[in-house]
Amino acid sequence: MPSASASRKSQEKPREIMDAAEDYAKERYGISSMIQSQEKPDRVLVRVRDLTIQKADEVVWVRARVHTSRAKGKQCFLVLRQQQFNVQALVAVGDHASKQMVKFAANINKESIVDVEGVVRKVNQKIGSCTQQDVELHVQKIYVISLAEPRLPLQLDDAVRPEAEGEEEGRATVNQDTRLDNRVIDLRTSTSQAVFRLQSGICHLFRETLINKGFVEIQTPKIISVFRAEDSNTHRHLTEFVGLDIEMAFNYHYHEVMEEIADTMVQIFKGLQERFQTEIQTVNKQFPCEPFKFLEPTLRLEYCEALAMLREAGVEMGDEDDLSTPNEKLLGHLVKEKYDTDFYILDKYPLAVRPFYTMPDPRNPKQSNSYDMFMRGEEILSGAQRIHDPQLLTERALHHGIDLEKIKAYIDSFRFGAPPHAGGGIGLERVTMLFLGLHNVRQTSMFPRDPKRLTP
Amino acid sequence: MPSASASRKSQEKPREIMDAAEDYAKERYGISSMIQSQEKPDRVLVRVRDLTIQKADEVVWVRARVHTSRAKGKQCFLVLRQQQFNVQALVAVGDHASKQMVKFAANINKESIVDVEGVVRKVNQKIGSCTQQDVELHVQKIYVISLAEPRLPLQLDDAVRPEAEGEEEGRATVNQDTRLDNRVIDLRTSTSQAVFRLQSGICHLFRETLINKGFVEIQTPKIISVFRAEDSNTHRHLTEFVGLDIEMAFNYHYHEVMEEIADTMVQIFKGLQERFQTEIQTVNKQFPCEPFKFLEPTLRLEYCEALAMLREAGVEMGDEDDLSTPNEKLLGHLVKEKYDTDFYILDKYPLAVRPFYTMPDPRNPKQSNSYDMFMRGEEILSGAQRIHDPQLLTERALHHGIDLEKIKAYIDSFRFGAPPHAGGGIGLERVTMLFLGLHNVRQTSMFPRDPKRLTP
Repeated sequence: MPSASASRKSQEKPREIMDAAEDYAKERYGISSMIQSQEKPDRVLVRVRDLTIQKADEVVWVRARVHTSRAKGKQCFLVLRQQQFNVQALVAVGDHASKQMVKFAANINKESIVDVEGVVRKVNQKIGSCTQQDVELHVQKIYVISLAEPRLPLQLDDAVRPEAEGEEEGRATVNQDTRLDNRVIDLRTSTSQAVFRLQSGICHLFRETLINKGFVEIQTPKIISVFRAEDSNTHRHLTEFVGLDIEMAFNYHYHEVMEEIADTMVQIFKGLQERFQTEIQTVNKQFPCEPFKFLEPTLRLEYCEALAMLREAGVEMGDEDDLSTPNEKLLGHLVKEKYDTDFYILDKYPLAVRPFYTMPDPRNPKQSNSYDMFMRGEEILSGAQRIHDPQLLTERALHHGIDLEKIKAYIDSFRFGAPPHAGGGIGLERVTMLFLGLHNVRQTSMFPRDPKRLTP
Repeated sequence: MPSASASRKSQEKPREIMDAAEDYAKERYGISSMIQSQEKPDRVLVRVRDLTIQKADEVVWVRARVHTSRAKGKQCFLVLRQQQFNVQALVAVGDHASKQMVKFAANINKESIVDVEGVVRKVNQKIGSCTQQDVELHVQKIYVISLAEPRLPLQLDDAVRPEAEGEEEGRATVNQDTRLDNRVIDLRTSTSQAVFRLQSGICHLFRETLINKGFVEIQTPKIISVFRAEDSNTHRHLTEFVGLDIEMAFNYHYHEVMEEIADTMVQIFKGLQERFQTEIQTVNKQFPCEPFKFLEPTLRLEYCEALAMLREAGVEMGDEDDLSTPNEKLLGHLVKEKYDTDFYILDKYPLAVRPFYTMPDPRNPKQSNSYDMFMRGEEILSGAQRIHDPQLLTERALHHGIDLEKIKAYIDSFRFGAPPHAGGGIGLERVTMLFLGLHNVRQTSMFPRDPKRLTP
């Protein structure tokens, strides 16, 4: 139970205040002892998001972080934050609060967590800076539950300031390394809250859609004897990422699978636009971008068509060359211009640029039954019909100079009858980044790992 | 498209048959060329589970595996299997099938995948050995789509035979190493199909319950600088396992979290019993066990109560000793006897046997605010209130002799205000194993990893 008794985290200022004489409010504030589950009090804590006009004139208890505080004569305004919601609170000298109590409140380190008892009061003018715009909390008691250190490595208000506004008005923004070094604080911003709630939504919509289609979720080992090496020093690569993978047996043509995957993506986009509008708008405030556009059914282009579009735009490329990142982006622009979509499938990649287990196109030995999917001009999924015949698989592995011993278990798995099948792997961080129009995959990985970062 | 033309997988027997003269059915069977997505035929493939009396007298196409075949004079009976469903098929000399075609069908290697055209016929006597008991398929065409090698490393019928039946009747069963070495085949058995469909259900129910409670799914890094070392040479440890983890801020007492976790488990148990009865019964056929029992709300025992029960049963244990595996099991029996439940919480573990970040009990310095949860006498979850105060965390780490440099990022994460919180990690493979009353966690891991196994 929070109480005003001396705390184990002894602090100069609170002690000094509490020791002062003639403080009629001295039981009404302070630093609580650490919550160690000492008791189960009968107290209901109201959620900040529930502080609305319906609760006007009620006395409530709220637990929240001190987002900002501003003392002004005999009163102190606090903004109290809880996840993505915040509310204004007022501590004013009067029956409930003494001068000392106002001073105490004004001196609580930002980001500390407090328990506050207060009366919910309707305000005459909407509070534009808070999510709870119609009420404020008139504080009667305030106890610090968890004290933050006084010097924050980054300010939350700086961390959500749009780059452009920072530049124009000469105000601070926070660079990415500072954010990532102090990710536990950076994750508290409204932008981060929105990003990761939306990402949770992607996972949920992905599984919901596939379970409804009759898929079964499986868990595959991460400890394997063959690893994949990619250059991770880019804006869109991490040394560790979350893959949402789909594999599906088909009847006669891998397009059966490709279309299921594309439809799954469309269901995700629709679900996000329906259920996460608030989060999208929150992120847009800091990182403005056009709403994500897609077609139904999904646009499918063949690789040779894409080459023709790029060549028409002046790009020089051979038929069997892979797309460079700048060319992928350029193609994205061309496709957007011509078809008005941010999502499309690029089908029939050159066999030469795909992994050994990719099924060759039976009609054109230089092509393959493989596809990538793109969002805003960047690849978010690679997929293909997989070779299900162990003999052809062996031939292709040898062609690629792969040591057969190392992939024996893989090839053997096809020796006892395997249906034709195809699939694809979706990069969760990339889908989040590109749906929201962000520019670095580290923004959409909670604790990103790259060649230079193993902590926090 | 499947066709009767010579296949790239040349096989002695089929060729010989196809070369034979006067075969009026020669276009109606054979080995198809590999499906490489050559065409998009207009053919509908009916699912085996949909072969019911409603389809009687219809001509249908079905793709399935040859589970067994048995020739008998001028006819051949096949059992065709698709995932967890199977149906009897009959190839008999007549208008549609020649002698050669019957011989071809009888010689198809088991586990090969075939496309079959046939008429659905109602049968007079239920076919007890198949899931589709009321109909059989009268085959008019049969093409091999993917040929299995002739010698299977294990027989599926042996692999689902109950241990007891094998011993009594002197019939073969399959040992675990053979299963795991040939996991792609072992996963095709009705038992495996049921186990992993139910496991998918656990994941789904876990997330469904928590999303409904307002939780957010997050992805944490697997690449970290501190690893956990446990003895993995037991029936219930793997070097890699799937953890379903929950962390939650609470108000005043960690029981708020513990009770949410227990309720989540109860929702999973209920969901499994409601939605996966077929799967449970399928597994029970091979591995008989009592239905899983649980109470609502979940039974909570304190560690000292458990000690008293064990001591009464003759076990000698000190107050701060950890539970050995045999004692856990014995305790499970005692609890089942006394309270008639297979699921319970053991609360208030001795501080000495828990990790450094466990919150000590404020009322008893030898106890901690920590708990394990048990299914059928085995631990499936470990959890606790985590220390959220960086100073106490540092003290406890030093007490455990931990190098502070190595956990700096962890301790630092609490320096800027942290709410009291608790959580727990659920072992997915153990929950699956114990709910179904299985005896080895390798049965419930699709591709298990242990100190002796890195493949397949």
